[in-house]
Amino acid sequence: MHIEVREVGPRDGLQVEAPISIEDRATLIDGLAAAGLTDIEAVSFVSPAAVPAMADPDRVMAAIHRHPGVRYWGLVPNVRGAELAVAAGMDALTITVSACPVYNQKNIRRRVEESMAAIADILDVAGLRPVDLILSCVFGSPYTGDEPSQTTPELISQARQMGVGRFTLADTTGMATPTRVRSMLETVGTDVGLHLHDTRGTALVNAWEAISCGVRRFDAALGGLGGSPFAEGAGGNLATEDLIHILDDADIHTGVDLGALLALGGSLREMVGHELSSAVAQVGPR
Amino acid sequence: MHIEVREVGPRDGLQVEAPISIEDRATLIDGLAAAGLTDIEAVSFVSPAAVPAMADPDRVMAAIHRHPGVRYWGLVPNVRGAELAVAAGMDALTITVSACPVYNQKNIRRRVEESMAAIADILDVAGLRPVDLILSCVFGSPYTGDEPSQTTPELISQARQMGVGRFTLADTTGMATPTRVRSMLETVGTDVGLHLHDTRGTALVNAWEAISCGVRRFDAALGGLGGSPFAEGAGGNLATEDLIHILDDADIHTGVDLGALLALGGSLREMVGHELSSAVAQVGPR
Repeated sequence: MHIEVREVGPRDGLQVEAPISIEDRATLIDGLAAAGLTDIEAVSFVSPAAVPAMADPDRVMAAIHRHPGVRYWGLVPNVRGAELAVAAGMDALTITVSACPVYNQKNIRRRVEESMAAIADILDVAGLRPVDLILSCVFGSPYTGDEPSQTTPELISQARQMGVGRFTLADTTGMATPTRVRSMLETVGTDVGLHLHDTRGTALVNAWEAISCGVRRFDAALGGLGGSPFAEGAGGNLATEDLIHILDDADIHTGVDLGALLALGGSLREMVGHELSSAVAQVGPR
Repeated sequence: MHIEVREVGPRDGLQVEAPISIEDRATLIDGLAAAGLTDIEAVSFVSPAAVPAMADPDRVMAAIHRHPGVRYWGLVPNVRGAELAVAAGMDALTITVSACPVYNQKNIRRRVEESMAAIADILDVAGLRPVDLILSCVFGSPYTGDEPSQTTPELISQARQMGVGRFTLADTTGMATPTRVRSMLETVGTDVGLHLHDTRGTALVNAWEAISCGVRRFDAALGGLGGSPFAEGAGGNLATEDLIHILDDADIHTGVDLGALLALGGSLREMVGHELSSAVAQVGPR
């Protein structure tokens, strides 16, 4: 079995940290590629005023050493972002729309309908590049409770009709449980990625449950970095090390070298200036 | 489905903390019973010189308000401990033998064979009381690697022949993974309890995997307290709150009131003087 791990640390991890240098961001991305990650969400084309740590995505992309066989993903909030992403040489684009209208307004300052309507133009700009629609707050929201789980299937259906070919379900504030993961996958199918946060200690168990349901794509962030600047207590991402640790032990192939990842985690700790939340980063693998 | 949760915080949690008062220990035990825990490992009859935080088990048991329907478990290291436990009014006894000879020597200062030989006499003293043999380091040991997983089935077989009717597999230093949990259960059967530590962030995923294999008994400690004084980096126990949180969401019955548990966690934080590692204790349930 092969699991595709998309590393989102350079984007979803670093966005809540104090800004680090372009060189460090490029070093992190290059290190991830060298460790065997084939999909890396490297940068974001959001407003640097809103998210200072994500400023200068074009300079980051110019500073990296492009690794053959790696897809470099860029998060784009709108059509203008998509144009910048294409100009910066991104291989693939992520779009975020929230299944929770309140969160969508806080995160992207748009109504869900406006975000959905913008997708068609983004797809035009993307051309043949893969575009992944990340639906946030799918398993619940601090603002609207369980409602987003009800609206998610319809959003997927709408986006599919617009031509979106790839979807990721995000548990933005750690409200998923194995039960809810299974239930959602029974509704929307398993040809989706999962983007899990560890707010309530459930990221790994939710990932494992999803794998047993048939999901084969996961977002994860080195060190368990992350959170959301627009949702309190969002908690870090599923830690890449912690995921690879149990996948390796299950003989599930990812192509990622855990040793290289752990060494890179040491550098990341220096870059961000604090301990990483990943358990395996702290104590080492079994 | 019903899952039996044995709360081990007053024993395996507090044993690595600075000693707290008899009153606080009794308050914790009474609070756990009030929250619906029907099995509580309340005290340990080990040497107070070796584990100062576990001193005066008889005084703790005299201070609690016995809750009808609760089994109060006491850990006994030897026959003398079993006699003291019976005198203190324990309902049920736990014995610990390590599947790792090095850990057994450090933990109980005996060879595994000596520990096993002592079981017969402990069973005599226990009479009709349930006796649970907790095998530690079953999923690996920092001293002997994966060897304990090989010897565990034979130890269970020996103990069963001696009359032990109940077994718990302990992941003392957090070396279990879902794969190893499933593999071990395929070998020894699912009529065992699991005692999991969260050293590598795997306690919850291992518990969930065990449930899907058919296991119905778990040890857990309020707040994720714990570790081992005799194995470096042992990490805290599976947090009772974190377990109940996902079991409640799965409509799996435990009889435990999560709200009461979280309120008690607030008191426990005061007692031990530091934050609890449980994610749900820190951010609240979904």
